[in-house]
Amino acid sequence: MLKFKSYYDLKIDSDDKRAIEDAFKYLLYEKERQIGGYYDLPYSSQKLLKQIDDFTNSIKEIYKSVENIVIIGIGGSSLGIKAIDSMLKHKYKNTKNMLFLENPDPIRLSKMLSLIKKENSIFIVISKSGTSIETISIFKIILRYFKFDFSTIDSKRVVAISDKDSPLYKFAKENHIKTFIVPKNVGGRFSVLSAVGVVPLALAEYNMVDILKGAKEFLDNFFAKKEEHLIKKAYFYAKKHKQYPINVLFPYSDSLEDFTKWFIQLWAESLGKIDEKGNSVGLTPITHVGSVNQHSFLQLIMQGPKDKTVTFIKIENFENALKIPNISLKHIEKTDFVNGYTLNELINAECDATKESLIAQDIPVDMITLDKLDENNIGKLIIYFEILTSFTATLLKINPYNQPGVEFGKRILKEKFVSKNSSLS
Amino acid sequence: MLKFKSYYDLKIDSDDKRAIEDAFKYLLYEKERQIGGYYDLPYSSQKLLKQIDDFTNSIKEIYKSVENIVIIGIGGSSLGIKAIDSMLKHKYKNTKNMLFLENPDPIRLSKMLSLIKKENSIFIVISKSGTSIETISIFKIILRYFKFDFSTIDSKRVVAISDKDSPLYKFAKENHIKTFIVPKNVGGRFSVLSAVGVVPLALAEYNMVDILKGAKEFLDNFFAKKEEHLIKKAYFYAKKHKQYPINVLFPYSDSLEDFTKWFIQLWAESLGKIDEKGNSVGLTPITHVGSVNQHSFLQLIMQGPKDKTVTFIKIENFENALKIPNISLKHIEKTDFVNGYTLNELINAECDATKESLIAQDIPVDMITLDKLDENNIGKLIIYFEILTSFTATLLKINPYNQPGVEFGKRILKEKFVSKNSSLS
Repeated sequence: MLKFKSYYDLKIDSDDKRAIEDAFKYLLYEKERQIGGYYDLPYSSQKLLKQIDDFTNSIKEIYKSVENIVIIGIGGSSLGIKAIDSMLKHKYKNTKNMLFLENPDPIRLSKMLSLIKKENSIFIVISKSGTSIETISIFKIILRYFKFDFSTIDSKRVVAISDKDSPLYKFAKENHIKTFIVPKNVGGRFSVLSAVGVVPLALAEYNMVDILKGAKEFLDNFFAKKEEHLIKKAYFYAKKHKQYPINVLFPYSDSLEDFTKWFIQLWAESLGKIDEKGNSVGLTPITHVGSVNQHSFLQLIMQGPKDKTVTFIKIENFENALKIPNISLKHIEKTDFVNGYTLNELINAECDATKESLIAQDIPVDMITLDKLDENNIGKLIIYFEILTSFTATLLKINPYNQPGVEFGKRILKEKFVSKNSSLS
Repeated sequence: MLKFKSYYDLKIDSDDKRAIEDAFKYLLYEKERQIGGYYDLPYSSQKLLKQIDDFTNSIKEIYKSVENIVIIGIGGSSLGIKAIDSMLKHKYKNTKNMLFLENPDPIRLSKMLSLIKKENSIFIVISKSGTSIETISIFKIILRYFKFDFSTIDSKRVVAISDKDSPLYKFAKENHIKTFIVPKNVGGRFSVLSAVGVVPLALAEYNMVDILKGAKEFLDNFFAKKEEHLIKKAYFYAKKHKQYPINVLFPYSDSLEDFTKWFIQLWAESLGKIDEKGNSVGLTPITHVGSVNQHSFLQLIMQGPKDKTVTFIKIENFENALKIPNISLKHIEKTDFVNGYTLNELINAECDATKESLIAQDIPVDMITLDKLDENNIGKLIIYFEILTSFTATLLKINPYNQPGVEFGKRILKEKFVSKNSSLS
């Protein structure tokens, strides 16, 4: 169960009401017309589960000995998978290990290669366009390093996830590599509940049924107008985006650190845009993990410019009873007031104390509380942030589903190598 | 060797010159009067190395079998150590493993406890005040979990680093635990070159001599007026802090991710302050790692509000020749333009391409280039960012060395438990 509570004033007049009603209608329209495509995933991705079962049955001998699920992907093709893996792995004792090859960093990649054995791994290469330069380059390094030969059983150790008929899709088909398709209308950063996330996570034995179910429940509630808090929050963000251009996401749990990285892409890439009138608009996401980052960032929020909203995420029950023992250390008795309490109680009390000190400074704060960190809540949390993004974008009159600003750098990159090559020849 | 290059215009008139000259004089004054204390560390910390040698000799039998250096600390008592460990560990094949117990997160802490054996570990508890609630609580958990008895040889497995005469210091002294002292005038976020960083990293067998030497070289150059680029950058940040309230640090190397977390504390906690006139001022640090975060944050920098400066960090030579093999995958030939190049070349070309696309959008950009990721450069990089912080703070007329904004939350936290305890009794 998720609880949402905001601690800021939002006066809604009749113009505001109309803007909100219009935006809600527009989201319904997006959903019905399959724009931004993710609205359908909690339903449509359920069929993937059967396909994944069929696939693992078809490679039964290989799958039995698989210990590592190696993900080759970057951005929208890795962040969501990593987020769910990090949030859930404490619950699964025998889950297969997920390893992520994302950045073309030579030090990190060498280290990762030394940890991987072909014999106990499945390699999942994910690229929506099928031509991501980092992903395909790393895939080639893997093929050479492990001496892959697709005319042998090696082809059964690879899975490709891509747009239908993309270059990667065609390559895979011709080499008897299993493929799964990302729906064309689903952008990378909204794709975690498509094959992009569902296939790798199901192969790693995570319970994707319950994640999809959680997402579906929230989605249905939202369109049945039962999640008004989301609409109000999006409205506050959009209306005050010049006063509060920075949104801080501050979960009190290490397990959510990778989730915050997924959120950064979702928020930054969707909302940093040129609007209808040619103005640069956007909301800047910043993420921190509590209580550890109280010790690095809180001072700035408290006394720096009042340009930030803060969203806390708190887990009520960690299902872990680690306790601060009743030991009094001579001279340090001052810290004994937490003796006998669980770390669960300590970290949540810190979250509440930080929340209260920000509220006292008139900083717009809201709190999302999960009763526990489980599949259903994670599904809800994902779709909550996706809808919040779409709703805020609609109010800001920008398109959350494209990313025209990154194409220029890609062209420059290519030119650098092409000019190098031609000067060599 | 470090190279610094900026790509923005800064017109300096005679008033500006005077402000810069005054700030420079003020930093000299801080250095001479030992305000902010860190200026002295590249010199004074050299004597620590002998003390550490004496200590390891005194516990020779224990130290021989040590595999893990377990750090119990949070904020300024862990971020700098972790930063250096992450930047250097690829160079050291047989270094002892560093494990960090920072956040009172029950899931993470349970996981870490399962990885630690008392018999092959040294536990370093670090708290400047000696009463950090998270650190002392985790320390108590360690004491109970591993059944520590300080009347035995157990006392030789613990090291305490703290202010002289702090509660932790006194506790350690009475229990025959080895202590090292943080100079009183050195704040947590400026303390990595004090005992806080030097002792754990030297115990993990990192070459601290060369790190301190690098820092000293940069510091001497700065005060000999040979690092003018730093002064200009600080001036640009301070003068335009309302136009560019956000500073993005964007290294192209996974090894620097923890360094960026150290930077966040340094920048946010030092510069987020109420100034002489009672105004909230501050610069907000955001950090990303390339090329991976081009796929999540670049769109916002390119097309969102023009409120960000960007500092790239590039490593010229990774000392790792991992290459993209000359394989052409049918249908994906479009990506072949990087074939035969090293990942080193790819990641740096991506850095340059991103830099150029931001410059084309008139975004203030600068580039720090390390010829390689070694001890000397790391020492320089640390002191560079510390001086940049002090200089910027001086120009903004704020005190970078205190953090009054976080005390309120600490009081609320304590009240929560005290009221719980009294309602129980």
